[in-house]
Amino acid sequence: MTDSDTDPTPETLADRVRAGEVRFHALEEHADADTATAARRLLVEEQSGASLDHVGAYSFDAAAAAPNIENMTGSVQIPAGVVGPVSIDGGAAAGEYYLPMATTEGALLASVNRGCSVIDRAGGASARVTTTGMTRAPVFHVESVVEGEALASWVRDNVDTLRDAAEATTNHGELEEVKPYVVGDNVFLRFRYDTKDAMGMNMATIATRAACEVVEAETTASLVALSGNLCTDKKPAAINAVEGRGRSVTADVLVPREVVEERLHTTPEAIAEVNTRKNLVGSAKAGSLGFNAHVANVVAAMFLATGQDAAQVVEGANAITTVDVREEGLYASVSLASLEVGTVGGGTKLPTQAEGLDVLGVRGGGDPPGTNADALAECVAVGALAGELSLLSALASRHLSSAHESLGR
Amino acid sequence: MTDSDTDPTPETLADRVRAGEVRFHALEEHADADTATAARRLLVEEQSGASLDHVGAYSFDAAAAAPNIENMTGSVQIPAGVVGPVSIDGGAAAGEYYLPMATTEGALLASVNRGCSVIDRAGGASARVTTTGMTRAPVFHVESVVEGEALASWVRDNVDTLRDAAEATTNHGELEEVKPYVVGDNVFLRFRYDTKDAMGMNMATIATRAACEVVEAETTASLVALSGNLCTDKKPAAINAVEGRGRSVTADVLVPREVVEERLHTTPEAIAEVNTRKNLVGSAKAGSLGFNAHVANVVAAMFLATGQDAAQVVEGANAITTVDVREEGLYASVSLASLEVGTVGGGTKLPTQAEGLDVLGVRGGGDPPGTNADALAECVAVGALAGELSLLSALASRHLSSAHESLGR
Amino acid sequence: MTDSDTDPTPETLADRVRAGEVRFHALEEHADADTATAARRLLVEEQSGASLDHVGAYSFDAAAAAPNIENMTGSVQIPAGVVGPVSIDGGAAAGEYYLPMATTEGALLASVNRGCSVIDRAGGASARVTTTGMTRAPVFHVESVVEGEALASWVRDNVDTLRDAAEATTNHGELEEVKPYVVGDNVFLRFRYDTKDAMGMNMATIATRAACEVVEAETTASLVALSGNLCTDKKPAAINAVEGRGRSVTADVLVPREVVEERLHTTPEAIAEVNTRKNLVGSAKAGSLGFNAHVANVVAAMFLATGQDAAQVVEGANAITTVDVREEGLYASVSLASLEVGTVGGGTKLPTQAEGLDVLGVRGGGDPPGTNADALAECVAVGALAGELSLLSALASRHLSSAHESLGR
Amino acid sequence: MTDSDTDPTPETLADRVRAGEVRFHALEEHADADTATAARRLLVEEQSGASLDHVGAYSFDAAAAAPNIENMTGSVQIPAGVVGPVSIDGGAAAGEYYLPMATTEGALLASVNRGCSVIDRAGGASARVTTTGMTRAPVFHVESVVEGEALASWVRDNVDTLRDAAEATTNHGELEEVKPYVVGDNVFLRFRYDTKDAMGMNMATIATRAACEVVEAETTASLVALSGNLCTDKKPAAINAVEGRGRSVTADVLVPREVVEERLHTTPEAIAEVNTRKNLVGSAKAGSLGFNAHVANVVAAMFLATGQDAAQVVEGANAITTVDVREEGLYASVSLASLEVGTVGGGTKLPTQAEGLDVLGVRGGGDPPGTNADALAECVAVGALAGELSLLSALASRHLSSAHESLGR
Repeated sequence: MTDSDTDPTPETLADRVRAGEVRFHALEEHADADTATAARRLLVEEQSGASLDHVGAYSFDAAAAAPNIENMTGSVQIPAGVVGPVSIDGGAAAGEYYLPMATTEGALLASVNRGCSVIDRAGGASARVTTTGMTRAPVFHVESVVEGEALASWVRDNVDTLRDAAEATTNHGELEEVKPYVVGDNVFLRFRYDTKDAMGMNMATIATRAACEVVEAETTASLVALSGNLCTDKKPAAINAVEGRGRSVTADVLVPREVVEERLHTTPEAIAEVNTRKNLVGSAKAGSLGFNAHVANVVAAMFLATGQDAAQVVEGANAITTVDVREEGLYASVSLASLEVGTVGGGTKLPTQAEGLDVLGVRGGGDPPGTNADALAECVAVGALAGELSLLSALASRHLSSAHESLGR
Repeated sequence: MTDSDTDPTPETLADRVRAGEVRFHALEEHADADTATAARRLLVEEQSGASLDHVGAYSFDAAAAAPNIENMTGSVQIPAGVVGPVSIDGGAAAGEYYLPMATTEGALLASVNRGCSVIDRAGGASARVTTTGMTRAPVFHVESVVEGEALASWVRDNVDTLRDAAEATTNHGELEEVKPYVVGDNVFLRFRYDTKDAMGMNMATIATRAACEVVEAETTASLVALSGNLCTDKKPAAINAVEGRGRSVTADVLVPREVVEERLHTTPEAIAEVNTRKNLVGSAKAGSLGFNAHVANVVAAMFLATGQDAAQVVEGANAITTVDVREEGLYASVSLASLEVGTVGGGTKLPTQAEGLDVLGVRGGGDPPGTNADALAECVAVGALAGELSLLSALASRHLSSAHESLGR
Repeated sequence: MTDSDTDPTPETLADRVRAGEVRFHALEEHADADTATAARRLLVEEQSGASLDHVGAYSFDAAAAAPNIENMTGSVQIPAGVVGPVSIDGGAAAGEYYLPMATTEGALLASVNRGCSVIDRAGGASARVTTTGMTRAPVFHVESVVEGEALASWVRDNVDTLRDAAEATTNHGELEEVKPYVVGDNVFLRFRYDTKDAMGMNMATIATRAACEVVEAETTASLVALSGNLCTDKKPAAINAVEGRGRSVTADVLVPREVVEERLHTTPEAIAEVNTRKNLVGSAKAGSLGFNAHVANVVAAMFLATGQDAAQVVEGANAITTVDVREEGLYASVSLASLEVGTVGGGTKLPTQAEGLDVLGVRGGGDPPGTNADALAECVAVGALAGELSLLSALASRHLSSAHESLGR
Repeated sequence: MTDSDTDPTPETLADRVRAGEVRFHALEEHADADTATAARRLLVEEQSGASLDHVGAYSFDAAAAAPNIENMTGSVQIPAGVVGPVSIDGGAAAGEYYLPMATTEGALLASVNRGCSVIDRAGGASARVTTTGMTRAPVFHVESVVEGEALASWVRDNVDTLRDAAEATTNHGELEEVKPYVVGDNVFLRFRYDTKDAMGMNMATIATRAACEVVEAETTASLVALSGNLCTDKKPAAINAVEGRGRSVTADVLVPREVVEERLHTTPEAIAEVNTRKNLVGSAKAGSLGFNAHVANVVAAMFLATGQDAAQVVEGANAITTVDVREEGLYASVSLASLEVGTVGGGTKLPTQAEGLDVLGVRGGGDPPGTNADALAECVAVGALAGELSLLSALASRHLSSAHESLGR
């Protein structure tokens, strides 16, 4: 608080904004966070004619959200629930889990829940994180391709120097790789870090900035942007689908034929046919980076429920679903190439989101570090698998739209 | 409610689940929605050891969320705020707008707000919806390519019949196109609808199902799945980036050079260079369908604040940002190919989300129909433009990570 | 010939270049084409130390190649052969065909020939052209998105005017569609033509230029480039894989199980598994626009043998191969989305290439127009199908590299 | 030769085929290669009505083409020429080069030649190979994701063992990396080799087969296909555009403003605008993996002239062209991500193709090994740069179609 007024109320604070004494985005400098937030609602209500009563009905201290938002007016309430329990045999997750989800799409939880039930009947799903690494890829300007090739060579020869600079900025992060890409007079350096239980974008950004200072000091290259879009953050990009970002995680289940028939009212063969014609051939024809039915639905719902970054649902959709008919029944898997999750930092400390992590038992740092985020990734993957199983079965039974009709909007 | 017990409490209802008398997902059949939701929290808390107090602190009647979720435990609270006001000259939107956003990513609203401020200083942004159409693409199985070609011909000759069947299922939707794609013994029919103010997935699904029944009755083709992934819903796919889905919407602004220099502390030339090397060349090298800096951030935040489907942030990221240096200063644009928005249905009736729409003045059906959703799309596009301007400028000034450090997690 | 010298020889002509009297690229202005070509060989041999005897051993009058090359030194000889005969039931092709191919890749013709043999044993392949249209997409610069949207509307309202202008430049071509795409202050207009038996790039370019003149005269838009890369010519682009360019053509065959087992030494199930794991899942993971084994090999070889544009092999690789196990045996198909072929113009008049077209009976214009190019497309598709069948079978039998060892380099 | 007949003639050999005594594809077992080839022409002429006189007019011993083709009938003659000379400052290439090209597309050599002339006037182009590596990626079937993750770990721990097995099959090749990708019950291992002056597909295939035998012997994984399409060979795939295959090579030039104006009749600014709107924004909108004007034209023409694999033009089109306006004038670059070239093996020994390599001075193995193929890659890159410069300039001057009209078909 930078001024002397005592006990401002939302009304008095709003008045001061109207009078031009205080700026709309700086209310928190003149009152506690809850008062500032209330004053901002008054001003927005006045300007727009809207009521913001529900937005103002958040259950926590507004100051607690300061690391997460500016110009705060309150909170949006997204309906939340759980599916499961579902049994998971993961590399980090193990046991019976309720999976927390938040969504506004009717029928989604019912569908995923059905999938969880089938997975449980089948003895549970397995899941494994197969690669890990948060990336940041600055772009440098060089004079020529000759200089670009020289920079790429210099980087390959000086990874240790870059690592020292990068890791000096972080207690937990470890630089795992720096890979140069030359495009004319642009050189992109893709830094990849193990960020343990943090999703890691900020850690990677700060560490990479330090490494970039070394590059600029030691070479003739000039930094254009700390992110050169080869990272790739929050855009649908093949580099993520192919090479991974955050966690590459995969889950599978083997469902006995009789369970498919009794619980899903279809056959392994019919599900396999739907998967091939829709998820593989259809996605191929669409020029897609996502070969699945609706993985993004589960990623989005679990991201919202556990404080992940909703914009990274984009990368979460880079998933491939496979189905085999085996002697024992139906084999189904889903592999998410670039699932960016964390159990510390970001939105994970917010009250409802922390509760979501608690439902999974993965709040905060894991022991050893990284295992909580691994477990979260595995839980999301199993949720996605349940969603795929259920929707593919429903399609196989031609029930998609009728399910929406009865349960939906 | 299907049984005779009177006045169940959360505790008694939970007991009945433990006793195996009532199923976890069917609590709403045995109590009012709030009691059922509370009982479910008790059971999840017991199983997981988590407290769900904040999740339970929602401000509305749980029954109101019944169209949006099953297995409800409460709500997740996402911090919400506004940016602006920003002046928009749109095809449907017109005037000064506060843009509502919900996010957990610190620094985002501050950044977009800075962009809005610059846009306003420049006299406002323009925006236009350039194409409209929600799609659904069932996949049919045919016997052979001969039959596939015949089906494609039949469809081209019978669009009116298909339209009659499809439009009979909807009061508002209009079938605009049916386009066949033959891949061996698969035929995909991509139906495109004008769904007015609805995002339209359910409308399109139901209408397409009716049309599929005609196809199956009149031809030898057999429906495999109502969605064949050529739609493409919630997956990153080139067909959406190229041809559009939902709304294709574009926004631009011309910022005088002095405004760039004074407010953004950089130059039009520097911003253009960052845009070319990062958003164009970097995205090209990444094999990306998104040629922008962080459009998904704004799409996600405005989607959450206005009751849109969070999983459709995936398609919202299919955006191209362009920057020109002009005599007058900096020209910047952002074009979102596949923004799927609605102001009726889905999550738009939920209390906090409806308030978000009210802030924009676009709640419910527009007059004429479709104009509210158009206006919402234009507001998102201008928000995205503000975000691009701000982040590109910050990168140009090499301030990205320091901004995150001071404002971020 | 612009000067008066009589009877120049290669040697005297080369001397005049050395003397600076005649320019290297303008030799044809000073001698007949064969003499000019010989003189150019002398000069290149002198500069490089190479012998060009074989390059000089072409069998036709150099003047005949004037429409196809400048700075001519002779010809490259690519080994040529045929596969088949194979029985084709096409929309335009019908009967038994030897398929001409030219390649330097050992084992290719043997492999495709084996596929043809199996197809014949199965009673032949079917093939159909499912869409037709050569595209050209100029890019215009507009002042703003407002103007961009106005241009898109103007185009939709004035297709007839554009058609008149475009079709005035051609005897055969028909404008089928003009589709606008707005990206900020860029507007792309994708013109699609039926170019009959011509591959049609030049026809489309010339017609589009005429239409662009109308656009520039009637609107405020300014043409930036006659090709704005949304065409897309000779680049791997999703727009072609999704929407097609040239011909979209598909071929299939149903091979009895016993033929698979006896001739291909494997089973329908094993081939289907290879196709799913390699061509579908593997290509998905690779971020590919080609979901096939080696269609480009056949496209390249038949293109070279019939005078097509070798650079358009790029688009020819946009193909999807599917395999089903059916009660009767193995169903296999291949669908080429963007096969750009012609039987008039381009390289089709060159002597060896014309002979290649004659082997297929498709040289020159078809009756009705377009049917020769359709038939050529169908023949290529069946050749590609044969290649897929053979390689998938070989992989299923783990014989790929041993086949290369014995037959290859 | 497996039978006793003496001195067969084409006619007698053809008779024996007609009589069913000799098979069409096995003529070489019954006669020398030239006679067999002639007999095959007789049979094809008879069946098709075509004359194959020109196809039969090849200038070499048919037996010399045995490693390159089966079912040979002769050769296709592609018009050939040269462009240049152009000065190249490469990592391996250095000096003045005529670039050999073969094509049927009129105006191409004239266009590239103009570009070469401008490059020379500007003092020459630079070029560098920035990464090298031929890849082969078998796909294995595992039982589950648990087993898949275990296989990936095993591979990471046993690279040396795999290297020993792979390198035992080759005198020159070196295994540089094995990278596992898990997709459900599929595991792809992408092997990358330095294959020196060979393009290397066969070397990589044979070496990988040996490594796969180790994998199968030491783990529970089962090989499905030696190529699992993550290689990716002859399909347009992002993995190649991003990570490279064969050589990643980049070339650039800085053209003084006055040279642009006098020789190209346009300005650096106009060329930059065309490049941005067409090659960057247009390709972005097209969902392209190629951000260039017509690189594939040059790749195809130089591939044909030097004995490269025409089907690999597909990967050669994965190129990005950049243009900057600098104080000194126009900076232009082209970067080909996946150019697959060799100077030994494949078609390089064929007479006309070997002459093409001789024109560049890169026939056979380099000293040190790999430098000849590097030099060839750099020459292609400079040729592509010349083509880009010329076409972008022509577009900037709106001369595209008129150039085609006067020079073209």
